[in-house]
Order: sequence, then C-alpha cells, then structure tokens
Amino acid sequence: MNVTVRGRTRAYRTVDFDERRNAVRLIEQRWLPHRFRVIAARNYLETARAIRDMVVRGAGAIGATAAYGLAQGARAFRGRDARRFAAHVDRVQHRLAAARPTAVDPRNAMDDVRRHMAAGSSVAEQQALALEAARAFADENVAHCQAIGRHGAPLIRDGMRVLTHCNAGWLAFVDVGTATAPLYAARALGRRFFVYCDETRPRCQGATLTAWELAQEGIPHAVIADNAAGHLMQRGEIDLVIVGSDRVLGRTGEVANKIGTYTKAVLARRHGIPFYVAIPLSTIDWTLRSGAEIPIEEREPDEVLGAWGVDGRGRRAWVRVANPSSTARNPGFDVTPAELITGLITPGGILKPAELRKRSVHREVAGSCP
Amino acid sequence: MNVTVRGRTRAYRTVDFDERRNAVRLIEQRWLPHRFRVIAARNYLETARAIRDMVVRGAGAIGATAAYGLAQGARAFRGRDARRFAAHVDRVQHRLAAARPTAVDPRNAMDDVRRHMAAGSSVAEQQALALEAARAFADENVAHCQAIGRHGAPLIRDGMRVLTHCNAGWLAFVDVGTATAPLYAARALGRRFFVYCDETRPRCQGATLTAWELAQEGIPHAVIADNAAGHLMQRGEIDLVIVGSDRVLGRTGEVANKIGTYTKAVLARRHGIPFYVAIPLSTIDWTLRSGAEIPIEEREPDEVLGAWGVDGRGRRAWVRVANPSSTARNPGFDVTPAELITGLITPGGILKPAELRKRSVHREVAGSCP
Repeated sequence: MNVTVRGRTRAYRTVDFDERRNAVRLIEQRWLPHRFRVIAARNYLETARAIRDMVVRGAGAIGATAAYGLAQGARAFRGRDARRFAAHVDRVQHRLAAARPTAVDPRNAMDDVRRHMAAGSSVAEQQALALEAARAFADENVAHCQAIGRHGAPLIRDGMRVLTHCNAGWLAFVDVGTATAPLYAARALGRRFFVYCDETRPRCQGATLTAWELAQEGIPHAVIADNAAGHLMQRGEIDLVIVGSDRVLGRTGEVANKIGTYTKAVLARRHGIPFYVAIPLSTIDWTLRSGAEIPIEEREPDEVLGAWGVDGRGRRAWVRVANPSSTARNPGFDVTPAELITGLITPGGILKPAELRKRSVHREVAGSCP
Repeated sequence: MNVTVRGRTRAYRTVDFDERRNAVRLIEQRWLPHRFRVIAARNYLETARAIRDMVVRGAGAIGATAAYGLAQGARAFRGRDARRFAAHVDRVQHRLAAARPTAVDPRNAMDDVRRHMAAGSSVAEQQALALEAARAFADENVAHCQAIGRHGAPLIRDGMRVLTHCNAGWLAFVDVGTATAPLYAARALGRRFFVYCDETRPRCQGATLTAWELAQEGIPHAVIADNAAGHLMQRGEIDLVIVGSDRVLGRTGEVANKIGTYTKAVLARRHGIPFYVAIPLSTIDWTLRSGAEIPIEEREPDEVLGAWGVDGRGRRAWVRVANPSSTARNPGFDVTPAELITGLITPGGILKPAELRKRSVHREVAGSCP
C-alpha cells in the first residue's frame, strides 16, 4: 500500500525481497506509527532475529518473511554438494522456525517452499526454486487479501461509518490486509465513508497501526476509546463492523480474535448492525470442537498497567498508569459465537459461519480462490 | 477511609476542615495513585483554585469543598458590620461557584450554607453557623454513602467477583463513595470477594483511583482493559456489576455515567449478571424527559490519543500513543436505559428504576434517609 514519507508517496509491501542483495526487506513495525523505516535483513540470521524481535508481526507477514528467509539462506550456500546443501537448508529452516515457536504460519510457509525445492536436481536449481516458491507464497497472500477486498467492498456504501477493532491491516500481511481489504477496495471504487478505529487496549494496535494505515491512504477516520463504540452505536453513528480473526473454528463458526471483539459483536447485535469477520482460509481451524477449547493467552500485566508511546521529546517511552500496588488480568483474545456474526468475508466469497461446516462448501470456496 | 503511608495507617476524608487554622484540607488527587499528599487551602481563594485545578474532583467532594470554602471565607471576615459581611460572603460564594461553573453541587451546597447562616443575628453567629452548616453538609454526604453501603452490602456474597467501572469511590465524595460503599460495607462484615476494576479509558480512573482505594483497604482486585469484561463474563468470572452515576433521570430511570457503562450493562444483561447503580438522591434529575436530552460532553481528543502516567524516573508524564496524524472522538459519558438496570442502590434502599417515577416512593426514600 501507499506510504508518504517527507512528501513522497510510494507503494510498499510489509515484506519484500531484494534479489541482487539477497536481502529480506521489512517495514520496521516497532517504531510505527511514530517513525517509518524499511530495514534490510542481510542474511537468514538477521531475518530470524527480525521475526523474533517483532520487527515484523502478523500471521501472513511472518509466514512470508520465513519463506523469504529460507530462500535467502538457501541462496547463500556456496558449492554443489547436494547433501551438504540439504543439511544447510535444514539448519536455516530450524533457526527461522525457532524465532516464533508457537506460530504456525512460518512452518507452513517453509514446508511449502521445501516441497517446491524438491523438484530441483542441482543446488543451483533448488536455490532458484526456493526463491520462486517464496515469491509465489507472498503473491498468493496478497491475491487472497485482494479477493477479500473485492468480496467485501460491496458492503461499504457511500456515507457509511465503519467500526474496526485491532489491526488486521496490510502490516499484518504481505499487503492489503484482511479486515482493511474491503475498505481499500471500496476506496478504489470511489466510495466515501468514515472509519472508527477502536484504540484496542492494551496494546493499542487500532490507535497505532490501523490509524496509521488509514492516514497513509487518506481515508477519513478517528480513533475512539474501546468504551465509546456502544455509545456511538446507540446514537446511530455506526453502520457496519469489520474485524479480522486469529482462528475461526470450521466446525462451529466461532471466531477467536483480539480481546474486545466479542463485546463489539454483542453491541452490534443489540443495535442490528452487521458484523463481518474478514479471513484468509488459512485461519480456519478444523480440529477444535468448541470455542471453549481455544487456549486464551494470559499476557503480561504491564500491558494493562501502563502504555507505550512517544514522550515530549519524541522518544519511545512507557508510562505506568495504574496504581503501583495493583496488578492486572490480561487475556489477549476472546471468542465470538457464530450467532453474532453476519458473515465471513473470505477470498472465495462471503459465507455464513454455519456454511463452513459443509466441507463441500469449503472445498468450493478454496477452489474458487484466485 | 484508611490510607497507609510509609507503614502508618490513618483514616482520612477527601475533604476536611481545620478549624484552628481556618483551612480546608484536601487530598491532592492529581498525583494519585503515584503520590499521596494532603494539602491545606489556607483561604477561600486557594480553595477555589483547588476546585478549579482538579486537586479535588467528584460531585460530592466538590460540593463539600465549596461549603467549607464558603465557611472559611466567612470566618476570615474581621468586623461587625452585617452589610459589609454579607457583601464579602457574596464575593466568596461567587468566586467558589466560578471555579467549576457547570457543576451543580457547589452551588447547591453553598445555598444550603447560606440558608443556615440567615438564622444568625450577628456576624460572629453567622460565621459559627456557616461552619456548622458546612460540617453538616459533609457529614450528611458521608451518612448517605454509608447508607448506600448498608443497603448494598447484602448483594455481595462470599466468593463473588464484582466488576466496577470508573471511580465512584470515596475520593469522589467526602468519604466511603457510592459504587464502592457496598464493597467497603461487605468487607467490614468479613465477606471475602474479588473486584475487577475496568481501567476506564481514556482517563483511567478505574486503574488509578479505584485500584488505589481498594489497595489501601486491602481488598483483592485486578485492573482489566475495558475490552476484557465481556470475555470474563463469558467464562463465568464476573458475578455482579456495581457502578456510580452522574445523573439518573427520575422520569425514565435512565442512567448517565462514564463512557463504557452502557457497554457493561449490555454485556451483563446478555450473561444474566445483576447490574446495579449506586447513587445519592442528589443525582436524580426530575426535569429531563428522555436520556436523548442529556448533553454528552465531547472531550479533548488528546485524552484518547495518549495516556498519563509516571515515567521510569517517577515523573508524571504524558505519552502520545496513537498515530500522530490521526484525531479522535471522545464522548465522555453514555446513557444506560432502565431496562438494563437491576436496581438503584440509594441511601433509602434498593429501588427498581421504574419505581423512581412514583414520586411518593421518592419522598418515602428521601424521608427514610439517615
């Protein structure tokens, strides 16, 4: 998507590859929205460190980063010995996987790259196939997000006020994003609308990342406290809600997403406001039988007890907000039942959550992906 | 209530009077919860400044501060000329009222003091009556909060997990508070329970003031992001909600309170959790016909775009959290309809919101106040 730095506008991807320098190019997300910078990870160890240290975050983005990192590591190998090459690639893959051990996307992405590499007969061929596969993985991620945008755009009509929660934007994917994709697609069709970004305490990804994304695209928006959405709905100032998801249960249609999503779904139902969840198909979990089985990560109390921002001198700083002798509970996610969800915006079209259960529909949707 | 400073525990009121020094004693609330300090306003001009600069805040607390300030100003008059004394007291009253021009409590409190003063025949008598009336006003505020505590305490049973929003604690009144009164009363009865404090963005009065109050009283509690209550209710971890109110409409039973209150009421209803509003009778507004008529203050965007706290060196600091080129909407209050309210905990007992409409019940309740 577009980013304007010192008056110059250019299109960026969250994750990209510089073939000549054999470098993975990443938007440094830890300083956003206060500073925009693209860094180059010059070898796979630097790429692994960038994943580990959250330079890049978001399921789709770290998947593509790992895929590129594997190609990068493979391409750095000098020699023609196939056995030594395979051992080297194993080491690279292991290091990249260990950078974010609980994430599933980097593993799946790298398995995919290795499957493609297997078709090569020489080291050089395998190196070329690795990069080709990594690029294909990243491009597919973008294409799926664009398809979500195409299917979601008709939901957004002129004059609408759309509520979002957290960041399922292009910074969490290779480009375009999921919950933001319909916004960008509607914008490209010339529609005029307004977006309310829940600040999304405690980590404030709505106030920081989503607001930054929308500002870069010139989409009119305002940040609101998470407390304010109910009041705005009550006064008729919100027409549509679109969020992303970390995991959708194929068997039940339940949606796990950032803490506070469930609250917005309950409020939307009370006020008869459509509530949509935008997801790539990789988000669907076919194993769990109930949302109650989804492990809800209990995160650091400090996230709730204070806030990160920049101080008066433009330096990144944390302030303690809460009473010093108090602690906090900090569940990171919640689960929204299918009955509160108007539709799932997928790359294959908009589905009712209950339609996921019909495996044939799922295959059809997957088959119709771009 | 009790405050422990460097290991020594002492009982304080939010607002008190030092007769010998003719000084209004106030807890300096702008530094709470990070530093506890009691300041002495040595003349009515200092008292007015303390009201204006938010050293003291909360309807009950600023009412009592103005009452004491008026007595303080009256007592500082030297001479026996009744006309000059009356002109002086007018000036004092005018100055104190102008310190927080939209608040109704200081005006009502000072009118009350002046009514009592009118019974005095000499300047000295009127000065004595002024202080007596101010003390009576403050004591009545405490007695009403204690009565709310007595009526509300039976709602809190052993093992319960209670959710609060914002701060309607003793710091907002002369002592005890309203939403917190049942907690303190239940605690005095030996009940064991746990309190979740909504941090209450954007100003975080739950994370700062309510959490500080509960910590001082040794009541087990945790701060949560405003986003988390829905999830906790869904998992059966909240049994009861008690909040305060800025204005309750006598005609409709609607409750205006800090932004986010409505959201909690909607969630509580969905999960069958009792939702109570603790109020002194002075909070009831008999004039408005509908909650839609309640003016909702739109506050500074900066409250939402950043956060106040203390930095690593213990200095009070504000950090900008949100994207620098984004703005915010910041409605300060919302309105909860009567149908979502289980009961109003008043000094005269617990009422259904609809019962307010029967004026006879209202008179009865007012009559039965301690």
